[in-house]
Amino acid sequence: MHFQPIGMIRSSFAQATGTPIQPYCAIGSTGHVELMPQFVEGLYDLEGFDRIWLIYYFDRAAKAKMRVIPYRDTIEHGIFATRVPARPNPIGMSCVKLLAIENNVLRLAEVDILDHTPLLDIKPYVLQYDNYPVTHCGWTDDVPDVPVVADARFEAPRHYCTTALQREAA
Amino acid sequence: MHFQPIGMIRSSFAQATGTPIQPYCAIGSTGHVELMPQFVEGLYDLEGFDRIWLIYYFDRAAKAKMRVIPYRDTIEHGIFATRVPARPNPIGMSCVKLLAIENNVLRLAEVDILDHTPLLDIKPYVLQYDNYPVTHCGWTDDVPDVPVVADARFEAPRHYCTTALQREAA
Repeated sequence: MHFQPIGMIRSSFAQATGTPIQPYCAIGSTGHVELMPQFVEGLYDLEGFDRIWLIYYFDRAAKAKMRVIPYRDTIEHGIFATRVPARPNPIGMSCVKLLAIENNVLRLAEVDILDHTPLLDIKPYVLQYDNYPVTHCGWTDDVPDVPVVADARFEAPRHYCTTALQREAA
Repeated sequence: MHFQPIGMIRSSFAQATGTPIQPYCAIGSTGHVELMPQFVEGLYDLEGFDRIWLIYYFDRAAKAKMRVIPYRDTIEHGIFATRVPARPNPIGMSCVKLLAIENNVLRLAEVDILDHTPLLDIKPYVLQYDNYPVTHCGWTDDVPDVPVVADARFEAPRHYCTTALQREAA
């Protein structure tokens, strides 16, 4: 299965260390998406949504490991019980705040994503589809509910050359 | 960017027509994941989560269109303002109920996914990361909040040969 980036995510985070691990840890962190021009028509009507999902390629994730110690805990969990980037298919998803759309640029807040990350998809955040008042969230129920930033433990050199994409978006 | 399936999603839906369009429309629809054996170790600890995200490849999605009439509405919206499968990168995500894990099999409820869909990733559903009490959900705020099933409008022949995968999972 082959996927192509549809744009690039821009943020103030050049490296994993110090990057918020999720949007709830990224209050005050703005950023934007630079969408490739051929996809701008697909943004029609998106502006009415408070939040959107960004689906992206963890292009600087370390090799997949089946057990990891995630940032929020001190003991190991299965990779599929965490949101750690070192996954078999390094696909990330973040529910960010949509502030405005200006042509091919989406202005965002609560961004927890590394600068120059290749974007794969944008989906609207819809209450009926995404908002479940669940009772049990596994090991995360037992760790402090405080903002956390990443360190370098899951970082590796960039997998994907974004030069062409950066040129296109410039 | 290349991705490989990590397993297969099984359900009672052989074709788009009649398939629930989201888990909230799929009350009573059970299914399961058959994970490839080399990834079973990554399930450690997942059982404590009420719900999980399945990230998958829409292997029977029609060619991407920038404007579509989604199942819930009668007028066009930008593809990124909808969850329609005919997207530039046909990646789907569904928040399903996790009932049990038996070796490499995850028993699920509220499944809105076609049978034999290639699975790309599993992520835990975590309140802090995924549950946002948003006020505005764009055009979806103005359509009836009732269960909807798909028709054939975004269906195409299978893109990806799952034969090897089916053999492995058998």
